[in-house]
Amino acid sequence: MKVGVIGAGRIGKVHIKNISMYVPELEIKTVADPFMNETAEAFVKKCGVANVTKSAEDIFNDKEIEAVIICSSTDTHSKYIIEAAKAGKHIFCEKPVDYDLKKVHEAIDTAKEAGVKLQIGFCRRFDHNHRGVYDVVRSKRVGDVHMIKISSRDPEPPCIDYVKVSGGIFYDMMIHDFDMARFLAGSEVTEVNAVGAVLIDPEIGEVGDVDTAVVTLKFENGAIGIIDNSRKAVYGYDQRVEVFGSKGCVRNENDIPNTVVVSDGQCTSSANTYSVMWDRYTGAFVSEMQAFADAVLNDKETPVTGMDGLYPVLMAAAATKSAKEGRPVKISEVE
Amino acid sequence: MKVGVIGAGRIGKVHIKNISMYVPELEIKTVADPFMNETAEAFVKKCGVANVTKSAEDIFNDKEIEAVIICSSTDTHSKYIIEAAKAGKHIFCEKPVDYDLKKVHEAIDTAKEAGVKLQIGFCRRFDHNHRGVYDVVRSKRVGDVHMIKISSRDPEPPCIDYVKVSGGIFYDMMIHDFDMARFLAGSEVTEVNAVGAVLIDPEIGEVGDVDTAVVTLKFENGAIGIIDNSRKAVYGYDQRVEVFGSKGCVRNENDIPNTVVVSDGQCTSSANTYSVMWDRYTGAFVSEMQAFADAVLNDKETPVTGMDGLYPVLMAAAATKSAKEGRPVKISEVE
Amino acid sequence: MKVGVIGAGRIGKVHIKNISMYVPELEIKTVADPFMNETAEAFVKKCGVANVTKSAEDIFNDKEIEAVIICSSTDTHSKYIIEAAKAGKHIFCEKPVDYDLKKVHEAIDTAKEAGVKLQIGFCRRFDHNHRGVYDVVRSKRVGDVHMIKISSRDPEPPCIDYVKVSGGIFYDMMIHDFDMARFLAGSEVTEVNAVGAVLIDPEIGEVGDVDTAVVTLKFENGAIGIIDNSRKAVYGYDQRVEVFGSKGCVRNENDIPNTVVVSDGQCTSSANTYSVMWDRYTGAFVSEMQAFADAVLNDKETPVTGMDGLYPVLMAAAATKSAKEGRPVKISEVE
Amino acid sequence: MKVGVIGAGRIGKVHIKNISMYVPELEIKTVADPFMNETAEAFVKKCGVANVTKSAEDIFNDKEIEAVIICSSTDTHSKYIIEAAKAGKHIFCEKPVDYDLKKVHEAIDTAKEAGVKLQIGFCRRFDHNHRGVYDVVRSKRVGDVHMIKISSRDPEPPCIDYVKVSGGIFYDMMIHDFDMARFLAGSEVTEVNAVGAVLIDPEIGEVGDVDTAVVTLKFENGAIGIIDNSRKAVYGYDQRVEVFGSKGCVRNENDIPNTVVVSDGQCTSSANTYSVMWDRYTGAFVSEMQAFADAVLNDKETPVTGMDGLYPVLMAAAATKSAKEGRPVKISEVE
Repeated sequence: MKVGVIGAGRIGKVHIKNISMYVPELEIKTVADPFMNETAEAFVKKCGVANVTKSAEDIFNDKEIEAVIICSSTDTHSKYIIEAAKAGKHIFCEKPVDYDLKKVHEAIDTAKEAGVKLQIGFCRRFDHNHRGVYDVVRSKRVGDVHMIKISSRDPEPPCIDYVKVSGGIFYDMMIHDFDMARFLAGSEVTEVNAVGAVLIDPEIGEVGDVDTAVVTLKFENGAIGIIDNSRKAVYGYDQRVEVFGSKGCVRNENDIPNTVVVSDGQCTSSANTYSVMWDRYTGAFVSEMQAFADAVLNDKETPVTGMDGLYPVLMAAAATKSAKEGRPVKISEVE
Repeated sequence: MKVGVIGAGRIGKVHIKNISMYVPELEIKTVADPFMNETAEAFVKKCGVANVTKSAEDIFNDKEIEAVIICSSTDTHSKYIIEAAKAGKHIFCEKPVDYDLKKVHEAIDTAKEAGVKLQIGFCRRFDHNHRGVYDVVRSKRVGDVHMIKISSRDPEPPCIDYVKVSGGIFYDMMIHDFDMARFLAGSEVTEVNAVGAVLIDPEIGEVGDVDTAVVTLKFENGAIGIIDNSRKAVYGYDQRVEVFGSKGCVRNENDIPNTVVVSDGQCTSSANTYSVMWDRYTGAFVSEMQAFADAVLNDKETPVTGMDGLYPVLMAAAATKSAKEGRPVKISEVE
Repeated sequence: MKVGVIGAGRIGKVHIKNISMYVPELEIKTVADPFMNETAEAFVKKCGVANVTKSAEDIFNDKEIEAVIICSSTDTHSKYIIEAAKAGKHIFCEKPVDYDLKKVHEAIDTAKEAGVKLQIGFCRRFDHNHRGVYDVVRSKRVGDVHMIKISSRDPEPPCIDYVKVSGGIFYDMMIHDFDMARFLAGSEVTEVNAVGAVLIDPEIGEVGDVDTAVVTLKFENGAIGIIDNSRKAVYGYDQRVEVFGSKGCVRNENDIPNTVVVSDGQCTSSANTYSVMWDRYTGAFVSEMQAFADAVLNDKETPVTGMDGLYPVLMAAAATKSAKEGRPVKISEVE
Repeated sequence: MKVGVIGAGRIGKVHIKNISMYVPELEIKTVADPFMNETAEAFVKKCGVANVTKSAEDIFNDKEIEAVIICSSTDTHSKYIIEAAKAGKHIFCEKPVDYDLKKVHEAIDTAKEAGVKLQIGFCRRFDHNHRGVYDVVRSKRVGDVHMIKISSRDPEPPCIDYVKVSGGIFYDMMIHDFDMARFLAGSEVTEVNAVGAVLIDPEIGEVGDVDTAVVTLKFENGAIGIIDNSRKAVYGYDQRVEVFGSKGCVRNENDIPNTVVVSDGQCTSSANTYSVMWDRYTGAFVSEMQAFADAVLNDKETPVTGMDGLYPVLMAAAATKSAKEGRPVKISEVE
């Protein structure tokens, strides 16, 4: 199946390379990027892609191309989803669809009406450790879900210019954890209570965001969720989940680069977790693209639907409101 | 130094035995219990105690006795503290002092005026694993404290008659975690937000309590805390803490009965944590009594003061109010 | 049951204290030690012992005393076993019985003829971690035993004067591991091959011993064993065992003082193992004495018989010969 | 740099795919295999290789090809090394070079005289966990090396026809561990003592081999080594190493597919190690080829030289002799 990729930035390059190496079912015919330059073109060509262009229209107009991978900036996501859907192409779109709930709905509706597949890029669902916890929960080995705990901490805060436009920590960072919470719970969130603090960098506070945040979630099925985020864990990318249930508890630990343990006269020590997100989720990016190919080629539902793209945005909206107003906020208040 | 013990129930027996075995500085002269019977007397005598009595007055009136260990039921704690203080005796009192804040204040004030030592029985501060985390935090190895996470889950719910009178999960169970949170943070809590659910036993809900609870804490120093409680962890007593700071993260794991690891054709497995609280905190009970002896004999401040007994009750009151009203509650609202 | 203890040195004190605290079935009536002094007497008295004496005869002649705990120097073990047996007293004797095989046999035979219980102090059999491995092996969860691996490393070499008279590393240190190997295998050793080296302290080599040693064992049931010893592990007392079988593998790890894990900007670290043997095997010393009381009072076979005392000495003799001659040595060669 | 690959069997395919995906410095121009068929050709072509042939001569005669990757059957290794060397091509050859020591020497000498690079395929040196231990040892963090312990156990015995011709467990399996021992010790082995047993499958014994083996090594620098092998570990591929030294101890654990830990009412369990060698050493195969490219292109010594190919064969010869004769065998006896 021939596909087109829109956007050859950081995440675009990851998908282009992964498809060329690990997803033989997909053949990238064209990569479109308004800022396409020589370096990007060289990279793309080396991955075996036939054509590059500055216009996404070239992809939408290409009858041979059956699916598009949208890796452009967030503000163009909904627009491209709509255009792709109207052109009858299946869609993989990076998260988040949009921060404007109306636009998210419009994108999802258009894809639905067009009868095309739509998958959102919540890659962590495909991580081996998180997927392992999910499988245990779904198998009912820990019984009914009572509590879900998610720790998610980045090694370094993003640059301040990004923080200014990102929508804040609940939209740009915790959105992954909102998705993970729903994924693990198998139930929708009805209420969130958010607490935030500026403990790492005052500048983050000055632009209206927090760098440390804790959110409590109530789920429809009665379970309670807890998410904690920090923009700076000096020991690396820290991502762990725990699900406690009526019959037990399942949790995972971070991956580390090797299993070496040293005991000397002082202590017993091992390696820290990865400091770079791409190292931590290498396999997840591959798996999500393989899952997309599988969904399209075998006419299955995509593993992360358009609605899966909508809910975390609702949760981010509620969390932002909760942190601002200092009270729990129901999802129904922001819907 | 001669001491008297009031109450020869479960916790009283633990302290009597521990003092006789591990705290040579203390000599139990008298044990008082209104329900003193032959079995209890035999146990007490075997621990080398000279006298048993049904009246606490015998202890207060004994000039030789310099300190009392109060292990009676909670409703008598403040009364005995006051009597002991007036009799000029140093006091170790089991937690909580009382659920009535006025009585707590009165007890603390009386002890203060009398110039006697007062130590409250928050034994977990003396547990090797929690103390280890505390030491790392105090040493500043993880820098400034940003987040504190406490998991505390019991193997089995208490009997429903206990739940009816205990004051509820925030008073009878999470009170330990409220103390632990303050202990680790080195800062006071200013606001709590509590979420509760009845997921284990509907009867617990019928008597007005919850069996699953999550509380978010705001500390004066800006840090954020999270406590989760469940009344039933089928895999045993689960008590872990984690402190995340500007320079790192420290956490502990549960103790397990042995370090044996078996790999068979199915999986790799090890033992679960202890299912009995006394097994888990064996050493902590000993250490707290040694610390009490040390404080009295060497005229040091007790490691868990009367005020340390007060604050967790304030937090429990705020959490109970928060869960009921569905909103964050400031400590100042219940003070 | 009234018992007498012979020897109030380091190990004697441990047993005296443990019996007084944890083995209510036994009452120490008399402690005998030719070097009994005021300090020792004070200690013994504090443990509730009625009498002290300089002569072991006082114990053997005391009709009330039904069992003796022999904690004297190794060269007196066999003599005291024989005397105690002839006096009709049950016997717990510290390891090793003797290095002279003839004396060992004589002691065992005399106890047997006298119809008294004899237990040898191989305390590691009672350690929770080693016992846990044993239980798994005996339960057949790992199937038939194919390989046994034992690591045993001390934090510091003993003083050189001890090394001169101890019989060497195979007699004074690896003897514990020889016992452990038999214990875990449930089969006798038929051949040993020993390799030794002087890598820690040349003085150890000068007095004819080695400080690093590896021994390969062949068992009657076909299994193969490996023991490694080092006299100096800078990170503490290191004692681990692993049993590999047809249906899986079971191993244990060292106990550590707490479960605290710290991640900072450099690495993730935890505590080292204990540096003092008594801290590591605290519970084992208690358990072996409880087992002795149980064997005598309930007329069961002792869990470490006289023959269990003999075999490790045979293995030590074979290992010493093997290391010297640079070839595998059959147990039958030294028997 | 253009390279040719000889042999498109299992290991050949791995190298072909890895080079095409992860080693952009190398371009496979031709793959030669006498049994080249349509399936193999399709695979090779898909990896972007231009030519396939049944004759290795086509590679040796191709002036454009600067290096060859020899993945043919063991009996052809030395012959192809010699031909490649004479054709002036750099050489990567799978282990072992040959079981005939004369042929090994001839191959090494010819490569040396021709001035071409020669790297032997001991891939485990490139594994992240083993490399991590190596790095710690070389950094002197554990001081001088006193003991090296290697466990190496396969999930399943090979088919009996392979065992008949493989040269036995010391040649076909432990050869990797012999290499690892030298790699970690940084010193040559002077003597080996081997113990073997048939515990898994009697048929293995009938064709003259063992399925369980333990080898003790003496190193020139005084260190002692221990290797244990089993042909059947039901819990998967088990490969761990431990290096004990004057300043500490370093060891590694097996990789597992994920970090998920489940605690239920029975126990706490996690995943077993991989059951397939290719999963376990995925990264190692890539790294060794990248190292080969680096050595050739930047004119460095290869990280696994011809002599590194020779020594493990010497050790296998000595171990085989030792197991047969029941005595330690010096390397000088088989050299």
